[in-house]
Amino acid sequence: MSELKGACIIGQSGGPTAVINASAAGVIQTALKSECITRVLGAAYGIKGVLADVLYDMGQEDPEDIELLKYTPASLLGTCRYKLADPDVDDTDYKKILEIFQKYDVRYFFYNGGNDSMDTCNKISKYMQKAGYECRVMGVPKTIDNDLYGTDHCPGFASAAKYIATTFAEVRPDACVYDAGMVSILECMGRNAGWLAGSAALANLTGYGPDLIYLPEVDFSMEQFLADVKEVYERTGNCMVAISEGIHYADGMLVAHDSGIVDSFGHTLLGGTSALLCSEVSKAFGYNTRSMEFCLMQRCAQHIASATDIDEAWRAGAFAVESAVAGVSDKMVAFKCSRDNGYQCELVLEPLEIAANIEKKIPREWINEQGNNVTQEFIDYVLPLIQGTPERPMENGMPRFAHLKKIKAGG
Amino acid sequence: MSELKGACIIGQSGGPTAVINASAAGVIQTALKSECITRVLGAAYGIKGVLADVLYDMGQEDPEDIELLKYTPASLLGTCRYKLADPDVDDTDYKKILEIFQKYDVRYFFYNGGNDSMDTCNKISKYMQKAGYECRVMGVPKTIDNDLYGTDHCPGFASAAKYIATTFAEVRPDACVYDAGMVSILECMGRNAGWLAGSAALANLTGYGPDLIYLPEVDFSMEQFLADVKEVYERTGNCMVAISEGIHYADGMLVAHDSGIVDSFGHTLLGGTSALLCSEVSKAFGYNTRSMEFCLMQRCAQHIASATDIDEAWRAGAFAVESAVAGVSDKMVAFKCSRDNGYQCELVLEPLEIAANIEKKIPREWINEQGNNVTQEFIDYVLPLIQGTPERPMENGMPRFAHLKKIKAGG
Repeated sequence: MSELKGACIIGQSGGPTAVINASAAGVIQTALKSECITRVLGAAYGIKGVLADVLYDMGQEDPEDIELLKYTPASLLGTCRYKLADPDVDDTDYKKILEIFQKYDVRYFFYNGGNDSMDTCNKISKYMQKAGYECRVMGVPKTIDNDLYGTDHCPGFASAAKYIATTFAEVRPDACVYDAGMVSILECMGRNAGWLAGSAALANLTGYGPDLIYLPEVDFSMEQFLADVKEVYERTGNCMVAISEGIHYADGMLVAHDSGIVDSFGHTLLGGTSALLCSEVSKAFGYNTRSMEFCLMQRCAQHIASATDIDEAWRAGAFAVESAVAGVSDKMVAFKCSRDNGYQCELVLEPLEIAANIEKKIPREWINEQGNNVTQEFIDYVLPLIQGTPERPMENGMPRFAHLKKIKAGG
Repeated sequence: MSELKGACIIGQSGGPTAVINASAAGVIQTALKSECITRVLGAAYGIKGVLADVLYDMGQEDPEDIELLKYTPASLLGTCRYKLADPDVDDTDYKKILEIFQKYDVRYFFYNGGNDSMDTCNKISKYMQKAGYECRVMGVPKTIDNDLYGTDHCPGFASAAKYIATTFAEVRPDACVYDAGMVSILECMGRNAGWLAGSAALANLTGYGPDLIYLPEVDFSMEQFLADVKEVYERTGNCMVAISEGIHYADGMLVAHDSGIVDSFGHTLLGGTSALLCSEVSKAFGYNTRSMEFCLMQRCAQHIASATDIDEAWRAGAFAVESAVAGVSDKMVAFKCSRDNGYQCELVLEPLEIAANIEKKIPREWINEQGNNVTQEFIDYVLPLIQGTPERPMENGMPRFAHLKKIKAGG
């Protein structure tokens, strides 16, 4: 084991989750205790805070607030969607990052994000190696989309899945209260992977689940969709549908209204698919319809976060620090899980490349043949992840959230 | 006390709430124990079930499912928005209701709803008196809108308020995670009364509350709204706004896109106001905006229902039965509350006319002078109502909801 002394940076990247701050707490609390890590710096808005030299001294925060991060939604340090250039084409950003690392004697870099963030880690690590600057770089996974390759699942997914399943189970009886029938379409996030919309199927455990689920893993056919909805509606008097925002036709064209807005990773912003499908159902059959989107709520609903998810998110952060201090670099923390004799989750390390820019989709055999629902295998996979209600700190009937002082670190 | 033996009917009317089934449980459990009440009938889809002679025998339900109604959202018997005609103009419905009451020997009628439902109770009771048919009619209040006159507050409001306050507190940090600023507008239900949107202010207790709140009690000015948003955004870099769907201009015209759809009570269906305001902000200043609607979730989120609300909703149902059996008729159960030395809620009886078709709005002095936020008095009023987390029955990480067999009663 080679001992490496120096400061560390924790950065949050990409879309927030209900438990990304729990991973930050895992990193910060473990790093503050480590004898090798001399200072714990939080990057404002992810890698952008490194580039702009806006780093907060986490050692000056109230330890109670750091603990409260476990139960505070969103990325409290701020996050970004910033893609580093290919260093062979433009190394401006990398030079700046090296300069900041040198300024603060940063020897550990922990980056908490999804596919794009693992790519960022990978590029930074390679550049530092080339520059001869010793720095251990570790990726901590997160994404509600659960599309990271190389890990059983991602911190953040389970809490979003629990929100979607519970909310679906609550909306179903509400949407069917009148004697006039209703087709209700609920839209979940998920661009290329349908893990979130698929999780609506867990609502079946309450007896109030979806009739139909459409996912990006299966090419969408408007004709088949309309036939499916009609069959359910005529048979039962109502129809409840869950969809992923990213469902698309066989030619790849999104069903979504194309908003025309593209983020800095080149992703088109989605939304409005459920409204469009409602309009098609209404035109085709004249049924009453209702379109709903879970908006930000699905990724920030800490009040219904899974205790398992919070715990695993924290452990992922802590394990990244422990591993780095022990000499590991260029790895992403990953989960290796077994469900055969009760749920077991082991933390392991995978190469950063395994996740960088690759998306993990639902296996086709976990989706039924007709492509309009998930199978029991899918349920068995998700169910252990949503277990547990944490002891959330409350005050006056409202949650207690962390507040960071964000004191800028001097170089 | 005059003893009156016979069957009772419980009906649910109007939009559902997270706790309307708790009131049904209060009625059913108390009625099943009463020696005067010979049979407990649940009306399918409110008064429509009476008119259509679709009544379920609640005595044949599993008592565990009746108990689970306390924790099951929506109107599990089914509900309706059905306005009875003026009996002097058209008494067809009333004749049918009398016929059904006679067929099942119904001597107690409990109707759980809002303003319109109290009007229904009132009309039925008056008709039965005129027809010389002895029947005790009691209104049990419910509405997330909290606009019933004659009661401190309505069952259902507190749970919706708790959902909105908690969700607002969670969305705020999430909506402000990027360094690019954002104006977020969250739309709550509330046609003429702003109790729900006002409750977003409780999020301030977490430190993550709204900057601005617009309510139907104050005439909306687009010019002032844009100036308010600009001031907050330029000062803080973000702006979080809560609005009622029913905000309107000084001439009464709704800010909402008029959907053109009118329900059977003559109410125009609303929605889309937050999107419209976002578009105005974006046009005026070019800020990033995000519009969100809480849709059905605000009224069916049992998973975050207030224990106080569930308890009061149950007690309201039970008290209606106890009072009717004791000889009372033509009353609505109401709450008389004191907040001076800790919160106290006493159940009282008010004439049905007090609530019928009158809407209770937020007192103007509980809204700030500028008309863009609520005052401490508003907070002090709502806060005791959202207290408490019930012990919800769970199974496999998901809620357990009631399932009714709905066995039709023979006449």
